[in-house]
Amino acid sequence: MGPRIESLDNLVLELSKLPGIGEKTAARLAHFVLKNRQNFPAQLRKALKDVEEKIKLCPECFAYTEQELCHICSSLKRQDDILCVVEEPSDVFKLEAAGGFRGKYHILHGSIAPMQGIRPDDLKISELIQRAKKNAVQEVILALDADLEGDTTALYIAKMLEGLNIKVTRLAHGIPFGGDIDYIDHRTLGRAFANRVEL
Amino acid sequence: MGPRIESLDNLVLELSKLPGIGEKTAARLAHFVLKNRQNFPAQLRKALKDVEEKIKLCPECFAYTEQELCHICSSLKRQDDILCVVEEPSDVFKLEAAGGFRGKYHILHGSIAPMQGIRPDDLKISELIQRAKKNAVQEVILALDADLEGDTTALYIAKMLEGLNIKVTRLAHGIPFGGDIDYIDHRTLGRAFANRVEL
Repeated sequence: MGPRIESLDNLVLELSKLPGIGEKTAARLAHFVLKNRQNFPAQLRKALKDVEEKIKLCPECFAYTEQELCHICSSLKRQDDILCVVEEPSDVFKLEAAGGFRGKYHILHGSIAPMQGIRPDDLKISELIQRAKKNAVQEVILALDADLEGDTTALYIAKMLEGLNIKVTRLAHGIPFGGDIDYIDHRTLGRAFANRVEL
Repeated sequence: MGPRIESLDNLVLELSKLPGIGEKTAARLAHFVLKNRQNFPAQLRKALKDVEEKIKLCPECFAYTEQELCHICSSLKRQDDILCVVEEPSDVFKLEAAGGFRGKYHILHGSIAPMQGIRPDDLKISELIQRAKKNAVQEVILALDADLEGDTTALYIAKMLEGLNIKVTRLAHGIPFGGDIDYIDHRTLGRAFANRVEL
């Protein structure tokens, strides 16, 4: 494999830890870094350091923020009594881009996955329950992934909120917009059938 | 597009400068960095800094190296009198992986591209000529890209080496291994025809 250059090999190793970046792509990226080593790596290092130092979790909803409270939690235009629960901070960006939701978010930072050792205590679930009580929340919308872990987490949260007189809803599952029935998997189709709506 | 977090936006911007990484992929990578900000960004910063500080160009062939001379230039097993000329340091890795070449390399760090303002003086061409003279080189193999810039650079170097009694060769162009004639573009096919060999 040609000459070994330790620091270059190590950069390839670090870059290949990024999701979707295999060893070949990592090598290509590392060579780009080297070719532009007059300024690019220093700029990227600065950007990484800023992210490490400046971004923390909002103490209310656990979104990323550089402020005391995040942009949404500190907004007077957003309703306090309706919470949308998501697994990851990036989900908030997606849902905000879709628009329309005027309540606040709560980020769990994962989903219950016993097989990977992720238990309810590892997530921001007790904080969610406390917040729901404190702010007299009317509705909790569970916008979790449509997989086994998402389902488990949704059921767990629904159980924890029982008796608090809070409406617990979940995002609709069904055929995606533009979806051709021919190409939809049978589990999605099964859910779309079960949740059919009257016209 | 949801809350703006300046340092996160900036990291996305820096990551999207990498080749083949669009804005969406960069955002996904940035969220991975954030999710793993306990250790990953610090490790990546260290790897970037090491590359910046430790890697320099070999003064003989201009390959990347952490040593005084690169691995190949300092090897006693490699012939001094046959040089393989390539455009980029990464090309050396590819050719070494292919194996078989026992001479040394010379890296130009680009190719002549008047449209992009890259002139012969911007490349390691005069260094190549000096080196060829100094080491009584017998053959210069041009392993340049099979495009307009590669062709221009090959012709320029051949002209500069004229009268030095050095054999100048170029990698064969033709149908790639496993190539189906049906799927080969007409320029490749034209070159394969022109360079046909007797069986």
